[in-house]
Amino acid sequence: MGDFSIVGTRYGRIDGKDKATGRARYVDDWKFPGMLYGKILRSPYAHARILHIDKRRAEKLIGVRAIATVEDTPQKKYGSYRSGVKDELIFAQDKVRYVGDEVAAVAAIDEETAKDALSLIRVEYEELPGVFHPEEAIKPGAPKVHDGVENNIVAHAITLRGDIEKGFKEADLILENRFETGIQVHAYLEPVGCIVAWDSNGKLTIWAPSQNPSWSRFIYAEALDVPMGKLRVVQTVIGGAFGGKLEQKQYLVAAILAKKAGRPVKIVNTRDEEFQTSMPRVPMVIYLKMGIKKDGMLTAKEHRIYADNGAYTKYATAVLNLGTYRVDGLYRLRNIRNENYLIYTNKVPTSAFRGFGNPQITFAVESLLDTLAEGIGMDALEVRLRNAAEAGDLTAHGFKYVSCGLKECLHKTAEAIGWKTKRGQKNIRRGVGISATSHVCGNRSFFPLFDGATAYVRVDEGGKVKILTGEVEVGQGLLTAYAAICAEEMGIPLSEVSVEAPDTDIAPFGLGTWGDRGTFIGGGAVKLAATDAQKQILEVGAEMLEANVSDLDCQGGKVFVKGSPHKFIPFEEVASAAVYRRGGSPVLGKGTFIPASELADETRYGNISGTYAFGAQTAEVEVNEETGEVRVLQIAAAHDVGQAINITTAEGQVEGATIQGMGYALSEEVQYERGVMLTPNFLSYRIPTSLDVPPMKTFLVKTIDPGPFGAKGVAEPAMTPTAPAIANAIYDAIGVRIRTLPITPQKILEALKKKKSTK
Amino acid sequence: MGDFSIVGTRYGRIDGKDKATGRARYVDDWKFPGMLYGKILRSPYAHARILHIDKRRAEKLIGVRAIATVEDTPQKKYGSYRSGVKDELIFAQDKVRYVGDEVAAVAAIDEETAKDALSLIRVEYEELPGVFHPEEAIKPGAPKVHDGVENNIVAHAITLRGDIEKGFKEADLILENRFETGIQVHAYLEPVGCIVAWDSNGKLTIWAPSQNPSWSRFIYAEALDVPMGKLRVVQTVIGGAFGGKLEQKQYLVAAILAKKAGRPVKIVNTRDEEFQTSMPRVPMVIYLKMGIKKDGMLTAKEHRIYADNGAYTKYATAVLNLGTYRVDGLYRLRNIRNENYLIYTNKVPTSAFRGFGNPQITFAVESLLDTLAEGIGMDALEVRLRNAAEAGDLTAHGFKYVSCGLKECLHKTAEAIGWKTKRGQKNIRRGVGISATSHVCGNRSFFPLFDGATAYVRVDEGGKVKILTGEVEVGQGLLTAYAAICAEEMGIPLSEVSVEAPDTDIAPFGLGTWGDRGTFIGGGAVKLAATDAQKQILEVGAEMLEANVSDLDCQGGKVFVKGSPHKFIPFEEVASAAVYRRGGSPVLGKGTFIPASELADETRYGNISGTYAFGAQTAEVEVNEETGEVRVLQIAAAHDVGQAINITTAEGQVEGATIQGMGYALSEEVQYERGVMLTPNFLSYRIPTSLDVPPMKTFLVKTIDPGPFGAKGVAEPAMTPTAPAIANAIYDAIGVRIRTLPITPQKILEALKKKKSTK
Repeated sequence: MGDFSIVGTRYGRIDGKDKATGRARYVDDWKFPGMLYGKILRSPYAHARILHIDKRRAEKLIGVRAIATVEDTPQKKYGSYRSGVKDELIFAQDKVRYVGDEVAAVAAIDEETAKDALSLIRVEYEELPGVFHPEEAIKPGAPKVHDGVENNIVAHAITLRGDIEKGFKEADLILENRFETGIQVHAYLEPVGCIVAWDSNGKLTIWAPSQNPSWSRFIYAEALDVPMGKLRVVQTVIGGAFGGKLEQKQYLVAAILAKKAGRPVKIVNTRDEEFQTSMPRVPMVIYLKMGIKKDGMLTAKEHRIYADNGAYTKYATAVLNLGTYRVDGLYRLRNIRNENYLIYTNKVPTSAFRGFGNPQITFAVESLLDTLAEGIGMDALEVRLRNAAEAGDLTAHGFKYVSCGLKECLHKTAEAIGWKTKRGQKNIRRGVGISATSHVCGNRSFFPLFDGATAYVRVDEGGKVKILTGEVEVGQGLLTAYAAICAEEMGIPLSEVSVEAPDTDIAPFGLGTWGDRGTFIGGGAVKLAATDAQKQILEVGAEMLEANVSDLDCQGGKVFVKGSPHKFIPFEEVASAAVYRRGGSPVLGKGTFIPASELADETRYGNISGTYAFGAQTAEVEVNEETGEVRVLQIAAAHDVGQAINITTAEGQVEGATIQGMGYALSEEVQYERGVMLTPNFLSYRIPTSLDVPPMKTFLVKTIDPGPFGAKGVAEPAMTPTAPAIANAIYDAIGVRIRTLPITPQKILEALKKKKSTK
Repeated sequence: MGDFSIVGTRYGRIDGKDKATGRARYVDDWKFPGMLYGKILRSPYAHARILHIDKRRAEKLIGVRAIATVEDTPQKKYGSYRSGVKDELIFAQDKVRYVGDEVAAVAAIDEETAKDALSLIRVEYEELPGVFHPEEAIKPGAPKVHDGVENNIVAHAITLRGDIEKGFKEADLILENRFETGIQVHAYLEPVGCIVAWDSNGKLTIWAPSQNPSWSRFIYAEALDVPMGKLRVVQTVIGGAFGGKLEQKQYLVAAILAKKAGRPVKIVNTRDEEFQTSMPRVPMVIYLKMGIKKDGMLTAKEHRIYADNGAYTKYATAVLNLGTYRVDGLYRLRNIRNENYLIYTNKVPTSAFRGFGNPQITFAVESLLDTLAEGIGMDALEVRLRNAAEAGDLTAHGFKYVSCGLKECLHKTAEAIGWKTKRGQKNIRRGVGISATSHVCGNRSFFPLFDGATAYVRVDEGGKVKILTGEVEVGQGLLTAYAAICAEEMGIPLSEVSVEAPDTDIAPFGLGTWGDRGTFIGGGAVKLAATDAQKQILEVGAEMLEANVSDLDCQGGKVFVKGSPHKFIPFEEVASAAVYRRGGSPVLGKGTFIPASELADETRYGNISGTYAFGAQTAEVEVNEETGEVRVLQIAAAHDVGQAINITTAEGQVEGATIQGMGYALSEEVQYERGVMLTPNFLSYRIPTSLDVPPMKTFLVKTIDPGPFGAKGVAEPAMTPTAPAIANAIYDAIGVRIRTLPITPQKILEALKKKKSTK
């Protein structure tokens, strides 16, 4: 693929060996001098008034160094960046709002002592009636999660495009259905943890597996009431994130304890805490109505979403409002009405998760599309192809598609699954389904002022190259991608390049890993910084070779005059001379990449991303009508990734995301009873294991785009189409349509029973 | 002093509170995940053949993870940078050469196990006759420390300037004396230690209190036979260095153990190891001959030095050859003959220590000068004033003095001690003495290619400023000086600036702390980087204030149009806008300062430093003729520091150095018996305590010079004149001249006895 020596080939991760051999150390592996261990006392009630907290017995326990409650905090309500909602304190005040709400915390000389101290804190509660579903919570008279919030509505927004009434009038068939998606837990293997320490000048350092070290400082500064410059966030090795390792209240609790104790404090979540409190995927009830003409052209789309915010507002506002309208650009929809309600409940606060709202809405749209296709008697693939977006499109919401590999993705995935021969063979209890997706790569709406990225490329006097960036490796292979982009640009071997984890006191400001921006935007910055560094190197090389800079090239770690590659100077010798020669100075290249995005207007219209990714997946399933069990026989995934930087990791991303999508579709279910989570562990909450993974065919569709060497993002879009493809395949297999996720055996048996009884 | 708001005033250290409260963590405070503890088995013999090493019993000890001997190393001889002598391996091979020589090492799960394992390693030695004094070692037939080295001579050099014979012919009085200086141990409070770890890609990281992180990589790369770029040195907080924390063999031992064990390894010296192996000050036997005319003008100087290298070559070559000729520029000497011998002995390897050879030779020159003055019947101060160097001088060795406050220093210190009334009152057993010094600030001869420094100044989007540098805080207050230079240059409060400790993967290349280059050269780089960063800030400020950049100023953290200081934007708001505005990027200023130094020719002639520091000290002593005890009643020190950046720390440097000089003069004595050190602890090796410190008067003499705001170095020169001033005061008090250091009560009693017997 292309004239590159590294980009577009296959190679291992630069951090792979350390991770595989256990040399990579996570925050919980570290012990700082004088460090204390923190534990958090959490509410056992979904909704209750706090009458009294008695810390006296706990304070007397030997080994306890600090006990903190809301009294020890600045008591300044804070919220996620630009959510506009500030409804949280570091500890609960007066009321608890979900099972897991932070009530108090202890720092002690070891974990056991801290745990013991928790059990000695006496909290008197007065239980209150709770509310656990958005459609219940919005009803007049429902218990209020936060005083003064009418009908528990956190946010309400309507977006109109085109003429929705005209659109439906033009339709030959209009269908409306209710869909519902469940809570999905990130289930990263490394629980959230941190070590924090204050220095004597009042500066706080947080060592933590943060997805957004630079940006998270806004929120921490607000909550702790300290200037942002007094906060330092140092990213530790991350064992998975998936959107779950943005700002963490845990770090603030640790900061309060550390301040009180005058010592560093470590807190690491238990797995139980992870399930109960870790800001999972926003569950949504989606009423979706779409119109279609006989020729397969979609005429209108209307949705009304009731999204479950949980007890406090994290990024659910953005998930709902910025995440669920992307799907409208997947097909050439012109007439749209979207209505979004975000509703408080007495459950875990929900937030960002791979796909950021897109898997939820795409499940509904892609499911309903199949039903519409069936209604007009047209093949589901054909309907998609007829409506599919194309390069050059300006979507209803103002997205400009420079490139678009959607149709090629649809063709590739359909062909791979054997669409023509397998689709519609209902009698065998096997079926195939298809779904597509579109996604942003970076989102100007999220951080309107600066949606770029900056990288520094530092050339060591020993010839090794180091990239400094505020962007974050969360397991997706970003370090390797950056090293590859840099090595390709500079003409040196990949082994010569390393990437430093972000430290907000050192690295350039970076927005972090979300919105599929890492490779496209961050990689763009790395490429520019590498160009700048290489310019400095070639200037020195030109002196050494007595040639013009413009005549020089560097390939394979050799600097030479173009046309005379045999007369070369090794890169490391030039790097060394750059510093050591008289008048020399260390080489540091700078690069800031700013995508050609636009600020959306108040209706959210605008080209918010510099590029867009597309994909389509097909699934073949077999359904056991006796047990309701669904077996995924194979999946074919085709994704428009622009130019893949590393084939191995790009395919890995597609495969990993697809499996996560399969879990979302079939097995990952959080169950609650009156606000108490019944599934807070991996025994009851079932993520797919290696035994569940079906054979997969993965295709990377190449398009030409303005990213670094043409790269787009792939991490998020690859999980979006899986659930609808599986749901559509199930319908193809047994003729029942399940519109709520996950599609459990119980739901299938119930649907089959209902189908039989209505026959 | 000057029109500055911070520079030249008094303020605390930015790292002071952390150090005073115990929050600063030294390498020994840290425990890394999976870390092992290393211990070194050292030779108990000064000189012996290794017949056999039996590790078997030690290997069987539970908890032992690795045992290393020379077989586990690359067995590539290495040496200090540019010494030209490569006489060391990481462990002794075949022979041990001093008591303390590294024979083997153990890494185990805890320190006790490692110690136990050492005792289980059986080493068979065949003892050899040793040689312990350079004047013995140079004799034909003396035992050879290294095979093939004739007469144990490591290095021999002669420097000639002017016409030495003519010089002595012109003299009215010629005197020659033998002087001898002792071993002085650095006695920093933090022993040398490290934690080292290899990553899976074969990269070694060394966390250690290194004085020269960037540069030390040359030697480590050579000794470990890995490319320099595969080495990372991260400086940990240093608890004192004084020249003793340049490259350490201990780190290499740890690296070999860590490689073998596949785990991080920590080694920290015991105090006993510190004394026995830590590369103390080079002891010298100095034959010094000088001629003087009746009018007090010096006509010629000839020295022959036999310096004790110890068993291996560290920086003693440089100490001898680059350190002992500086004194020749103190006075206007034109006719010079210097002959230097560096000699192996079976003792601890000697190396750099504050003053770097200058205290040794200055003790001799300044002692003999007093005797010469007495010989021609002229006051010792007057002789110095008549010969003293002045601004504009080009010295015999090619040093160009842009500024020179020597005469002012002499006047100031003499006046402060009450020279006129006190000098020459022998009958009261009290006396006053004077001595001067001159010193370099940076030394081109040491690292000829690049004797500059680079700094980056990073402006955080929260408005805080961070300096990145490869230069090193060793306790001298460099961080604070850099922060002050930066804050002054940028017009922001000192509290807004911090400095990051060097990490060779992040910081720009830096030569490190030695040769009084930190403030002058490193500070010069910080000032340039601050200018560059502020330019970027003011460009953004100009947009915001709709003004021309050239019309803007920043003072007190406020950016304003000159002449309208009331219409300002806070610095942090501009800093924030610099990143966040559309098209913005993080602010990073770069600065490389290269002093106007010259490369010396093969005779060492040349202006090797960009500026020179001068000083003079007087001491008043009282001698107890019964016990031989010397009590220093007061010291007055006057030092030409150019422009002091921080009065408090500059005075502190002078005072600390003077007390170290007092210990060198009177009490710090290493005693050996057949190569076995008899004084390996603070009970027997006596550094001055707070009770020994006399009242001090400190004067900072300001001169105009090309450094940052005019600053020169002060750390080293302030310890040089103390010993001769005290020796001269003792002579003034009781009429006996002690020409060997330290001047112990025993030596005084013996001299008094001899004086009486010759009367």
